[in-house]
Amino acid sequence: MTRFAVFTLTLFVGLGGITTMPVYSDEGMWLLNEPPTSILLTKYNFELTPEWLENARLSSIRFNNGGSGSFLSADGLIITNHHIGADALQKLSNKDRNLFRDGFYAKKQSEELKCNDLELNVLQEIVDVTQQVNDAVKPNMSPAEASAARRAAMSAIEKESTEKTKLRSDIVTLYQGGAYHLYRYKKYVDVRLVFAPEENIAHFGGDVDNFEYPRFCLDICFFRAYENDKPAQVKNYFKFNPNGPVENSLVFVTGHPGTTNRLETYDKLIHRRDVTLPINLSRLRMMEATLTQYSEKGPDERRQANNDLRRVANSRKAFSGQYAGLLDPTVLEEKKKQETNFQLRVKLDQGEEELDKFLKAQKRIADIQKEFTKFEKEYSMLERGDAFTSELFTIARHIVRLAEETAKPNSERLREYRDSNLESLKLQLFSPAPIHKDLEIQKLTASLTFFAEVFGRDAPIVQKILGGANPQKRATSIINRCKLFDPEFRKELVSQGVQGLDVTSDDMVQLARMVDADARTFRTLYEEEVEEPERQAFSELAKLRFKAFGKTVAPDATFTLRIAFGTVKGYETDAKENIPFHTTFEGLYSRATKLQNREPFELPKRWLEGKSKLDLKTPFNFVSTADTIGGNSGSPVLNEKGEFIGINFDRNRYGLVRNFLYTDVQARHIAVHSKGILEALKKLYDCQALVDEITR
Amino acid sequence: MTRFAVFTLTLFVGLGGITTMPVYSDEGMWLLNEPPTSILLTKYNFELTPEWLENARLSSIRFNNGGSGSFLSADGLIITNHHIGADALQKLSNKDRNLFRDGFYAKKQSEELKCNDLELNVLQEIVDVTQQVNDAVKPNMSPAEASAARRAAMSAIEKESTEKTKLRSDIVTLYQGGAYHLYRYKKYVDVRLVFAPEENIAHFGGDVDNFEYPRFCLDICFFRAYENDKPAQVKNYFKFNPNGPVENSLVFVTGHPGTTNRLETYDKLIHRRDVTLPINLSRLRMMEATLTQYSEKGPDERRQANNDLRRVANSRKAFSGQYAGLLDPTVLEEKKKQETNFQLRVKLDQGEEELDKFLKAQKRIADIQKEFTKFEKEYSMLERGDAFTSELFTIARHIVRLAEETAKPNSERLREYRDSNLESLKLQLFSPAPIHKDLEIQKLTASLTFFAEVFGRDAPIVQKILGGANPQKRATSIINRCKLFDPEFRKELVSQGVQGLDVTSDDMVQLARMVDADARTFRTLYEEEVEEPERQAFSELAKLRFKAFGKTVAPDATFTLRIAFGTVKGYETDAKENIPFHTTFEGLYSRATKLQNREPFELPKRWLEGKSKLDLKTPFNFVSTADTIGGNSGSPVLNEKGEFIGINFDRNRYGLVRNFLYTDVQARHIAVHSKGILEALKKLYDCQALVDEITR
Repeated sequence: MTRFAVFTLTLFVGLGGITTMPVYSDEGMWLLNEPPTSILLTKYNFELTPEWLENARLSSIRFNNGGSGSFLSADGLIITNHHIGADALQKLSNKDRNLFRDGFYAKKQSEELKCNDLELNVLQEIVDVTQQVNDAVKPNMSPAEASAARRAAMSAIEKESTEKTKLRSDIVTLYQGGAYHLYRYKKYVDVRLVFAPEENIAHFGGDVDNFEYPRFCLDICFFRAYENDKPAQVKNYFKFNPNGPVENSLVFVTGHPGTTNRLETYDKLIHRRDVTLPINLSRLRMMEATLTQYSEKGPDERRQANNDLRRVANSRKAFSGQYAGLLDPTVLEEKKKQETNFQLRVKLDQGEEELDKFLKAQKRIADIQKEFTKFEKEYSMLERGDAFTSELFTIARHIVRLAEETAKPNSERLREYRDSNLESLKLQLFSPAPIHKDLEIQKLTASLTFFAEVFGRDAPIVQKILGGANPQKRATSIINRCKLFDPEFRKELVSQGVQGLDVTSDDMVQLARMVDADARTFRTLYEEEVEEPERQAFSELAKLRFKAFGKTVAPDATFTLRIAFGTVKGYETDAKENIPFHTTFEGLYSRATKLQNREPFELPKRWLEGKSKLDLKTPFNFVSTADTIGGNSGSPVLNEKGEFIGINFDRNRYGLVRNFLYTDVQARHIAVHSKGILEALKKLYDCQALVDEITR
Repeated sequence: MTRFAVFTLTLFVGLGGITTMPVYSDEGMWLLNEPPTSILLTKYNFELTPEWLENARLSSIRFNNGGSGSFLSADGLIITNHHIGADALQKLSNKDRNLFRDGFYAKKQSEELKCNDLELNVLQEIVDVTQQVNDAVKPNMSPAEASAARRAAMSAIEKESTEKTKLRSDIVTLYQGGAYHLYRYKKYVDVRLVFAPEENIAHFGGDVDNFEYPRFCLDICFFRAYENDKPAQVKNYFKFNPNGPVENSLVFVTGHPGTTNRLETYDKLIHRRDVTLPINLSRLRMMEATLTQYSEKGPDERRQANNDLRRVANSRKAFSGQYAGLLDPTVLEEKKKQETNFQLRVKLDQGEEELDKFLKAQKRIADIQKEFTKFEKEYSMLERGDAFTSELFTIARHIVRLAEETAKPNSERLREYRDSNLESLKLQLFSPAPIHKDLEIQKLTASLTFFAEVFGRDAPIVQKILGGANPQKRATSIINRCKLFDPEFRKELVSQGVQGLDVTSDDMVQLARMVDADARTFRTLYEEEVEEPERQAFSELAKLRFKAFGKTVAPDATFTLRIAFGTVKGYETDAKENIPFHTTFEGLYSRATKLQNREPFELPKRWLEGKSKLDLKTPFNFVSTADTIGGNSGSPVLNEKGEFIGINFDRNRYGLVRNFLYTDVQARHIAVHSKGILEALKKLYDCQALVDEITR
């Protein structure tokens, strides 16, 4: 299905020697402090200036619930995807007000709705702290000591930075351990909802069209950042270009890609294929089935489960695509070829001694996978919490661990409880967002059932957790009597520390305590037997890679700000059909008609009745070759001038294998066209103030 | 969730001694040749006469696609469930005619639609052949020899019977090997569709309400048996009683329960819990997700996948219920208690020597489970075909095996290719029913993906089957070029025998050949290491049981005709709510309104517009304590006079554990009330001729 072009520099290192003329592809989610300046100059004759980059950096926003966005006005107006705003929309809804489904518009600023627990980050500065982090690890340390020393060093740097700058400070591990950069963010925690369209136009085509193209989605949502109860005044924002992209033009995407695995070794990908993905797919199908069945019970159940269901379905489709990619021998052969070329280059350029380092690191990574396989299920179920899919459980675990961890020095705590992260953690923990009892029961029942399926009913850990009940009885009994629905109760418990935990009769808290020793055991095993040794081995490979290729390959995605570039152009499908680079409103209406305007192709009333108001030739969605992945949802698409010409929301099916390999033959990311956004807002939504604000 | 009443005779054998007054429950799916005459006399003072039984037997029908039905007129008119007729409805539909969704009524006999491949069986006679079958197995035979000898004896008896009586003749294994009965059936293969209501009223509430009560479903469908192109003239049929059941009255259900596991040992149930059910649930979720996603693509895809999807969803819900039951320690403790009581009774009544036999048989069954665990996945994937969910694959396998098996003597063939079964097999194999290409591709892709997940991509068998492709590429390539869509091509291939297989370029046929050696290996292992030794061990237990209790316990269900009895009455839910024994049309409308008349609670137009024509107080569905399970769908519910008072279509959630334990406290089967059927047919459907035929 997916064909691979000859694309990255590494591929040109053949057995016959090294070509002298590098041909660059559009691959790369580049660091803002290591931008692809020379590639852009060579390939596109485009000069990426520091000023351009600075404006892009300060206008780009990370949505901490897993997406991206950007400023579109000096008054802190923000655009993101509807599916990134969905979590906030859902939490602002209730039985009588379904903002997720029906949309929202605040005509005046006073009507803008404050979100429950949304945190946004804007990157202010990057500092390379690789040396400091690595210096903490001494040559003769055991993996356990190394892991602890590294964690302590990182927490200390972060804490110092937070105290000094008052900025959120996170160390990011790049190149799987090849580099450590400190990211300093300005944080916004007062974020208010300005505008959302109806679910049915934002997600037109639903799961059927997800990761497909041509597409017809108004996947947008507007928020506004506030400071001191007033709209935040920002110096940097993207100018909204009302005309959108020109075919074959150079475009940029700035955003926060979540995870890629392109620098992982062949053996690690085999582990993903044979161990990690199958169990995850199995779990996702189980959870999707549960949420679908819950949703069918009635309109209110549907509202409650909607966001969970879309996220799970999206992951299932993305992981299925990854798995299909890894099951295809041509994909892994390509990875193998890249690795062989890398090895050859090390041998030719750096000599036998370095080659030996290469082979040892490679071997070590392979061995680590075998070790991980022995306890990966236990780690995922108990520590990652796959056996306890429940918001209340997550809350209970944090409360339990907060009490224990904050009693320790900052340097010795689990990463997420380091001082510099506590504020953000508590924003989530004490969120007044509604939690739905019946949905919680269903989710916990399903995940406990899956837990029993994986380990067997008689396994000691299953016996311990289920006791004398089956999953449904256990889940029902815990959740029916749980008091953690109330944020005040959570605060009270947190304030009481370990003493509070000892006396509370809340079964969910007691469940979290009951599994904690086992969970921590597997976490430690993971950190000491997998994470730290992998970092060391990958760091070795990274050094060799830098020597061999310089920084011509971007690090794998880490949910931090990156810049990608590409060309706006269509492609040919496997069935030899030519797909133009953009769709139109006309295409939307004809698809809805063809599919009998029936879910998930049911148009909102506003769109059915307003058809005659629209210029149907208006471009709606478009594609480019820029390199994106999940987490880039909501990323602005920019032209050479750095103007907003669209908003990324998806990629096509050919892009599903991008976790492992980039290709620009057929793979595309998909964006809403700025002209389409404007036409819809102007003609169908009565929101002149919003239109004025983005176009003035 | 489920509480257990003191119910069967065995439970009264306590450590303190044996009670003298047996208290009978309504448990039992009784053999027609070993009816519960004395229990009915004792408990209900009802005399079950041979005439009553004979009429019930000759009026009850087995639907060979997995359900039950009954004659309602002398002209061969048959009633069954809509969900049992669904397969035929689907096969009679096309892009422009969706009988499954929209319903059907033939006003005249000439308009009745001939089904593609529906075979009905009416039981004429039962002969006990236990002695003959067991005599074939000599004491010193190895399991392999015993298995072959038993199979040969069975095929010979069946062949002789078919030739002598011209009746379909199947030997049924009862009590897991404790007895063998020869069943002789009159076969109907010209079956025509008379009437079906709309899907939305037949399955009102869809998956949400499946296995739930109160219910509101017109789950009925009428067919007519034909002989020599004329309506079959039948002497026996059930008189339609227009008033339905009276509360607390005795009722009967005659039908074909598929599978129960009540006489299985504790160890075998543990095996089901820990090995069989988890992998099956995982596969069902995967297939349900695939079919749901396919259905969402558009109306025609929905039509194509509808019946598959409903069947898979139904199995998923039933298996989930079974699994939840086995995860509940109280259920298995109850089984353990029964087994201990049985053991005690053997010891007390029959002595140490018999106790030793008991313990050895029990141990042997436990050992067999361990053996089976070693290859159960291979057996399910390759031989049962779980890796190849595709109608075309099923066809290809039969074509491949027919050629090989029919070249052997009858006695040496795999069971399904014995002479006496070939006619029925070919009816399916050469069916002109449409097969949908894209749906086949999706199903095969999904099952091959699951296959890779379970064994790993590098397993030799996976390598062999997928070759250099991933599941999607492989499935697409096979099915796009497959010629088996055409029944004429199938006939041609079958007529050519092995020579035809050698030269055909059809990849599906070649796939079936490629896996056949492995599949047969695991089948042989299963037959020799599991099936035959289990039969011997269970036969030992059955003998001890007969000695201890007489035939007071019915054999487990075998998809053959059984009679059950029970009382029409409501129950109290876990939430202490009293559920009346019947629902009404009024309840239907109020549920639809409450759920916004939205799928799966969307009423057909006819029902929305016709509301005022109906007497809303008319009973619609009702429940009784009679002992039913899957396969009983479409079974007539009869009053003491043997009159039709309703049609069984489901059981409630408390009945999901019935595979292992019967309880009459809350568990109920659910039926459509004869009064409700008549009211709907008369007032909403313009089908006077049909009404006249069933009521005259």
